[in-house]
Amino acid sequence: MNWTEEQLDGGRSRMSRSFIFKNFSEAWAFMNRVALMAEKANHHPDWTNVYNRVEIHLNTHSAGGVITEKDRKLATEIDTLLTSHA
Amino acid sequence: MNWTEEQLDGGRSRMSRSFIFKNFSEAWAFMNRVALMAEKANHHPDWTNVYNRVEIHLNTHSAGGVITEKDRKLATEIDTLLTSHA
Amino acid sequence: MNWTEEQLDGGRSRMSRSFIFKNFSEAWAFMNRVALMAEKANHHPDWTNVYNRVEIHLNTHSAGGVITEKDRKLATEIDTLLTSHA
Amino acid sequence: MNWTEEQLDGGRSRMSRSFIFKNFSEAWAFMNRVALMAEKANHHPDWTNVYNRVEIHLNTHSAGGVITEKDRKLATEIDTLLTSHA
Repeated sequence: MNWTEEQLDGGRSRMSRSFIFKNFSEAWAFMNRVALMAEKANHHPDWTNVYNRVEIHLNTHSAGGVITEKDRKLATEIDTLLTSHA
Repeated sequence: MNWTEEQLDGGRSRMSRSFIFKNFSEAWAFMNRVALMAEKANHHPDWTNVYNRVEIHLNTHSAGGVITEKDRKLATEIDTLLTSHA
Repeated sequence: MNWTEEQLDGGRSRMSRSFIFKNFSEAWAFMNRVALMAEKANHHPDWTNVYNRVEIHLNTHSAGGVITEKDRKLATEIDTLLTSHA
Repeated sequence: MNWTEEQLDGGRSRMSRSFIFKNFSEAWAFMNRVALMAEKANHHPDWTNVYNRVEIHLNTHSAGGVITEKDRKLATEIDTLLTSHA
């Protein structure tokens, strides 16, 4: 399991993972694939990018900001992107 | 001037702006345009997206994490994206 | 109706529309929005881009290469992208 | 050399290569990387995508539609994308 689960204030929680790529182009290609997944699932990440680094946080706003099955499913899908060209 | 300039610790600084769009698709289209600009300028933002919101922070790592002309130039270019389809 | 419908050989057909933007960046942003729609609908265009021009052809492979409701629906969605920032 | 060079009418020429990926998402990620390269070089392809297939044609409009060093350079850069995750 490569995702970290955190408790946040107000009873909220989230799962997070950081990704490091070779350069911006490779990070951006990854983000474009995640964007397609997120739009398809109608479940969008809270994510940050700086050059070759991407940090993704997932929780479910409609459930009060906690981790739900939607998040675990998207996290699993995201992970398949990394192994697919290993 | 729509960008906010902040002093950070260690003598660093950054300029920031938040953008709100109608939905993820519109936010993502905007981010793709900024990505092209950033790669062309070889100067990349520190940015966060959650659904229809985008927050961009700019400073220059190679100058010790302060605001330079590179940041002001990219900020001005980003602003043109918003007015161009007004 | 901005889409042209053509009969192709072998009983096939397709609907097509050309789009002209200001530059590559604007065309690419549009294509990224269409990509999200297409992936969400699991129905992908046959499309060509040259700088600021995008040409989209739609038909349904699984129906033998003819125009179906899937194509008309995606065409209508694509058209909303153009009017939304008018 | 994976690119094919063709003579076109009117003394024009172009170099072309086809790419096949696992699905649209992988093709789209590749296209996003090529888009960054093209914008950076200010030299844009004539390209077509259908689901997991991408066909790229390169020539130089400003030189009268013939293959120039700009095209060979972009072709070489595009090829590095494929070997980088082999």
